[in-house]
Amino acid sequence: MASKSQAAQSGQALWTKMPKANAELFALTYGSLVTELVRDYEDPIEVNAQLERIGHSIGVRCVDEFLSKADVAGMGMATQCQNLRDTAEVVAKMGFKMFLGIQAEVGGFSQDQRSFSIYLQENPLSTFVELPGDEQSGGDDLRRLKYSNIYCGVIRGALEQVNLKVECNIVRDTLKGDELNEIRVELKEVLADGAGDDYKEE
Amino acid sequence: MASKSQAAQSGQALWTKMPKANAELFALTYGSLVTELVRDYEDPIEVNAQLERIGHSIGVRCVDEFLSKADVAGMGMATQCQNLRDTAEVVAKMGFKMFLGIQAEVGGFSQDQRSFSIYLQENPLSTFVELPGDEQSGGDDLRRLKYSNIYCGVIRGALEQVNLKVECNIVRDTLKGDELNEIRVELKEVLADGAGDDYKEE
Repeated sequence: MASKSQAAQSGQALWTKMPKANAELFALTYGSLVTELVRDYEDPIEVNAQLERIGHSIGVRCVDEFLSKADVAGMGMATQCQNLRDTAEVVAKMGFKMFLGIQAEVGGFSQDQRSFSIYLQENPLSTFVELPGDEQSGGDDLRRLKYSNIYCGVIRGALEQVNLKVECNIVRDTLKGDELNEIRVELKEVLADGAGDDYKEE
Repeated sequence: MASKSQAAQSGQALWTKMPKANAELFALTYGSLVTELVRDYEDPIEVNAQLERIGHSIGVRCVDEFLSKADVAGMGMATQCQNLRDTAEVVAKMGFKMFLGIQAEVGGFSQDQRSFSIYLQENPLSTFVELPGDEQSGGDDLRRLKYSNIYCGVIRGALEQVNLKVECNIVRDTLKGDELNEIRVELKEVLADGAGDDYKEE
């Protein structure tokens, strides 16, 4: 089982090894992507879905990178993720650290142990973002935009590759005035080995 | 005047201080942006123009960051960029380093000293990219896509903010089989002080 500190240490080690880009340029590029989608789809709900879809493709891609890098570090993922609690720790402490350089926290497990929350104090995607308030946006239209919804797709795509079918939702968002960012992850199904292959191409 | 090694050292110092993101995630996110644009506009020439436009917005934004960070480091940009040669050094050795973590080279100045090339041995944007060959793309359609055209916009936007109106073109591209990436920069006009303000919003 992955202890909390073990996952955090491994995450830091992985992050150190990764090639880096400028976080601000990354945030601006992501912002350009969101802007294009808002321009195309107009309906924020559809934009959220598109961001989730794009995230899914990236997550499918990233998990290979993650597993190979994590294996190189000799940490044996297979033995680490025995249950959803361990998996949650690995996603938050290693995945988020490796790809965003931030460490996320895990908590809020449901009684049946099938859902949990990932908490982000900071959100590198939203560095330069300010969503229009109710009064400016002509109703609550843009308030329905989940600006960072790509996270949900990335987590879904990544976990699907290790046979965990999950649904993710951003339930708290600092862009909307919440004190932190919270992504709720709910396990829907443990796929039989190999069944995940069907989902690889989207 | 900025000596070459001075600019390179300053670039390294700036890069060290910048918040970082994962370069692979950045490349994948940029790829998603290009994919969306290809889906929307179909015509590669129009996609190139859109990438340039988006780059321009980012460049306008980045130059403020650059100037403030560079000033913090006590390097006095105003005295460094006395002519286009100095400016070219600063863009290549400091700008590219600060935002992408790579160092570019400068060369190929025209006789009238109004155009030059920026050479990139590596291109972090294209890490995972392979453009379809002629036989796969049904003619040369996607061959006309300038995948990394955002660079041209960023450089144009950034230099516009310091009153230099330039045009940029990618003239060699490792994605198209060239041995390195070459961005040609041509000075069109030195804007009168303050005139650049007209261009700030696009």
